[in-house]
Amino acid sequence: MRTARGKTGWRATTWGELLSEFLGTFVLLSFGDGVVAVAVVGLTMSGRTSVIFQGAGGWLLITWGWALAVAMGVYVAGGVSGAHMNPAVTFAMALKGDLPWKKVVPYWLAQVVGAFAGAALVYLDYYHAINAWNLAHHVATRASAGGLTTFSIFATFPAQYFHGNMLGPFLDQVIGTFFLVLFVLGITDAKNSGVKSNLGGFMVGMAVAAIGMSFGVDAGYAINPARDFGPRLFTWLAGWGTNAFPGPSGYWWVPILGPLVGGGIAPFIYQWFIAKTLERRQATDVRSAQAHDPAASE
Amino acid sequence: MRTARGKTGWRATTWGELLSEFLGTFVLLSFGDGVVAVAVVGLTMSGRTSVIFQGAGGWLLITWGWALAVAMGVYVAGGVSGAHMNPAVTFAMALKGDLPWKKVVPYWLAQVVGAFAGAALVYLDYYHAINAWNLAHHVATRASAGGLTTFSIFATFPAQYFHGNMLGPFLDQVIGTFFLVLFVLGITDAKNSGVKSNLGGFMVGMAVAAIGMSFGVDAGYAINPARDFGPRLFTWLAGWGTNAFPGPSGYWWVPILGPLVGGGIAPFIYQWFIAKTLERRQATDVRSAQAHDPAASE
Amino acid sequence: MRTARGKTGWRATTWGELLSEFLGTFVLLSFGDGVVAVAVVGLTMSGRTSVIFQGAGGWLLITWGWALAVAMGVYVAGGVSGAHMNPAVTFAMALKGDLPWKKVVPYWLAQVVGAFAGAALVYLDYYHAINAWNLAHHVATRASAGGLTTFSIFATFPAQYFHGNMLGPFLDQVIGTFFLVLFVLGITDAKNSGVKSNLGGFMVGMAVAAIGMSFGVDAGYAINPARDFGPRLFTWLAGWGTNAFPGPSGYWWVPILGPLVGGGIAPFIYQWFIAKTLERRQATDVRSAQAHDPAASE
Amino acid sequence: MRTARGKTGWRATTWGELLSEFLGTFVLLSFGDGVVAVAVVGLTMSGRTSVIFQGAGGWLLITWGWALAVAMGVYVAGGVSGAHMNPAVTFAMALKGDLPWKKVVPYWLAQVVGAFAGAALVYLDYYHAINAWNLAHHVATRASAGGLTTFSIFATFPAQYFHGNMLGPFLDQVIGTFFLVLFVLGITDAKNSGVKSNLGGFMVGMAVAAIGMSFGVDAGYAINPARDFGPRLFTWLAGWGTNAFPGPSGYWWVPILGPLVGGGIAPFIYQWFIAKTLERRQATDVRSAQAHDPAASE
Repeated sequence: MRTARGKTGWRATTWGELLSEFLGTFVLLSFGDGVVAVAVVGLTMSGRTSVIFQGAGGWLLITWGWALAVAMGVYVAGGVSGAHMNPAVTFAMALKGDLPWKKVVPYWLAQVVGAFAGAALVYLDYYHAINAWNLAHHVATRASAGGLTTFSIFATFPAQYFHGNMLGPFLDQVIGTFFLVLFVLGITDAKNSGVKSNLGGFMVGMAVAAIGMSFGVDAGYAINPARDFGPRLFTWLAGWGTNAFPGPSGYWWVPILGPLVGGGIAPFIYQWFIAKTLERRQATDVRSAQAHDPAASE
Repeated sequence: MRTARGKTGWRATTWGELLSEFLGTFVLLSFGDGVVAVAVVGLTMSGRTSVIFQGAGGWLLITWGWALAVAMGVYVAGGVSGAHMNPAVTFAMALKGDLPWKKVVPYWLAQVVGAFAGAALVYLDYYHAINAWNLAHHVATRASAGGLTTFSIFATFPAQYFHGNMLGPFLDQVIGTFFLVLFVLGITDAKNSGVKSNLGGFMVGMAVAAIGMSFGVDAGYAINPARDFGPRLFTWLAGWGTNAFPGPSGYWWVPILGPLVGGGIAPFIYQWFIAKTLERRQATDVRSAQAHDPAASE
Repeated sequence: MRTARGKTGWRATTWGELLSEFLGTFVLLSFGDGVVAVAVVGLTMSGRTSVIFQGAGGWLLITWGWALAVAMGVYVAGGVSGAHMNPAVTFAMALKGDLPWKKVVPYWLAQVVGAFAGAALVYLDYYHAINAWNLAHHVATRASAGGLTTFSIFATFPAQYFHGNMLGPFLDQVIGTFFLVLFVLGITDAKNSGVKSNLGGFMVGMAVAAIGMSFGVDAGYAINPARDFGPRLFTWLAGWGTNAFPGPSGYWWVPILGPLVGGGIAPFIYQWFIAKTLERRQATDVRSAQAHDPAASE
Repeated sequence: MRTARGKTGWRATTWGELLSEFLGTFVLLSFGDGVVAVAVVGLTMSGRTSVIFQGAGGWLLITWGWALAVAMGVYVAGGVSGAHMNPAVTFAMALKGDLPWKKVVPYWLAQVVGAFAGAALVYLDYYHAINAWNLAHHVATRASAGGLTTFSIFATFPAQYFHGNMLGPFLDQVIGTFFLVLFVLGITDAKNSGVKSNLGGFMVGMAVAAIGMSFGVDAGYAINPARDFGPRLFTWLAGWGTNAFPGPSGYWWVPILGPLVGGGIAPFIYQWFIAKTLERRQATDVRSAQAHDPAASE
């Protein structure tokens, strides 16, 4: 039914889906980068004198914030385009046969543009806080080594303990995105114990919280090429220089390639470990039901 | 059916809805201002000597507390009036055509009165804690600069890094309330992936948590004219003087006008980016179904 | 149907309900007192040398822990007795007409016995941790002033800023329990926006989290006579002496009377502000439907 | 219907269920051990210079992380094998009659292998972080006393306050797993107030959060023989020596036997306190319905 041609055709489907992916990814990055801005510069620089801002920040704030960013993106864009908001998810859906291949690149573009716009909004909202932080910490230019902290509001970089070797962070991005897509497949699979009442968006947010809590510190859990590349491009244009491109130890390509590899593996693992059994069981049930039907020959 | 006139008419509808908006907003502010009271003065001044109160407070406590305040308000008032509890939401619903314009001002009044009453309850409950905090911190009068901390229990003020320029906080209120209404529209839209099982109230609470975590520190995320104006009025009457009106740098009007602008924009964005596609798709489906129906002419 | 007499009658209903209330309240106190034990003595005394126990504890741990304690109690006992687990809730349900008055006192007894048993389990599980804490903090006897900290694992006491005046804590217990029952009435009201899919238990847990976060520090948010009296009795027998009875400033009666008053007010407020409108609206709908029915005279 | 013999029989059922248990337990340990790795070595050693990693870690991070690990395991494996992911749960299901006894040992093996694999993945992902931590804390070998901290990423050990006496930790494991199975039985019981919309996986995650928050510090809340034994075996092979086997004070057998005892008790308690009443009530309802049916003799 979505193949109807004519004036309402492409507009009602692909164009509308691209608007939806744009808006969903815009929400994702506005809130994802926003919560890092709060944790990194906002809380400490707001100058509030009460105790309420002491001891705040921390990894829980960031992981819950990103989780809710995902959930809200889904509730805005889920009904139109499925709210992938992530090229690795889009790639996995195409591999699985749930999305036509010709839509993949347009989706990717919409996601990158949405992520760029979200980063720009956070920059606009926290412009004064970022500058105040840099002033207080004697960071002369964003492109200097000291600018990495405020850069971390927008995009990701690897942990110090890798000493510039990209194998560990790459593996981490493969693992994280593998799990993300695996969870999305489970949460949305009605044959499995898929979440009903349209609470899948909330649960995918919880999946991203889980990844952040358990696999978030090696490389900042981008697990999403658009989430990292869009904001990285923005920071490059906004003066963060080599902190953005090529990034520390030339990191910029890792959160693009790693997620595509990890996300691409997940549908095959899910198919072989889980979906195949559910299909065979269903087939057995049908055959078994026919066998008990006196009208059917054995 | 809600238009039936007579004795049970206006009473059963608008008057009942105003009682509902009053009670919902009363719950919202009792718990919202309450959690800030706990974080700002309650935990530190309760004099409990064990370790359990160290390191508490913080932004997560405040953001979860407000989120649950919203959810509980909805579960009390949702079935009667929709539990707007926020003039910006009421304004957006009228713009969208879901609420008659003549109900807008009565709703606003009920919300402001409810917010005022919630602030009064928190004042009553934490009267001793507030005084103990002021005594311990040598704050002579609430109207002095030192009174801003206890004022922050009730209403909002802008971050120091704006240096008194209201453009940034105003923009922040527009952005925050734009997202609030956008999320409410998505979460409650059955054509989109709207939450079922009456868990929308919980999810709108999560939306407010997201805004607090990601856009909360610029100006305390009032994102609601009644939430700020009602308690501000109460604090003005209770002796907080210029901290309440006009507020730091004359801030008092920002959390009134900003939310109305941001909340007013959201329905148009949602309509153009999301709802339009859902409508066209539905129309296409109907036409497509007719085309496949042999009894229908093409 | 629950009125059938005979052998299976009272056993299948009231006796089974009392077992259910006992088990539910046992779960509530095992986990509620348990999380305070973790926060007060467990984390610091476990002797684990890694960083994972630094900065933990805190009010969020306690409020989330109690919230989940409530939710789990409901999932164990909800289908049999409604999982009141609280004499103030039982009282409110009787006032509302949802529970026969003759069941009220048996429910109360089952709840107090369950709470006592839960406290005893926590004492058993954390016996060594409590003693280690007392040793490390040079607390000679539990009945001394220093014993108040470990007493706080089991039952409640008022904040220091009340200076022994019981009016504030009493008011706090009235307010907290009023809101608890108000939220329970809303969350479980199918005519309002009551939670479906049997997620009411989770949402009542969230309601208790809200009360803990926003009204928890004045007096430890007992908001439940059994929750406080059962464990208080246990601690009195286990040697905490005057910390238990009469408690600091003779506090012991406050979390019994306060909750009954607050819980008793809530059904009337809910009825007048909310339920009355829902009933009138329903009546109007029926009349309106009849008016549109050509078979009905106007 | 699952008893159909032939090529698709055992493969479609038991073999598929074992793959499912393997994958579910792999997810559980990847994320459960992962979040401890983040809290113990990841956050502090990642070398990020901003404030976002200060004050993080803590018990809440660990308890939420394990909760989401459980939930995600269920959403991956729930529809195929029920996602026990825990030999104590499998044992309880067999006792209850919901799983054939001949499947018990195969399930156990799949769970232990899955847990081993999850620990291996976390080791792979945090290899550099673990080594960096050991270097920074002057831990020469993993098998030394100083290696217990990094060992705690993978498996559990008792609190210091037991001074090597295993009675307390054993009791703790019995209690914790008793509650785990009790909650699972309640959450999944449609006759009781069992969670619908396939949100049981989320709620079982909340149950594990509750146990971690309230009974987690005595012995690290393994409450699952596979969760502890699989990773313990891995760490033994990876050089943690006596920290793994026999573990501090010969602890290794406690999180195997304790959970089986506690999990084995729960179905009987649930049956006697709760299920019996639900069954009798149902029987009474049927009889009562027959009595009101004029076609039925009294």
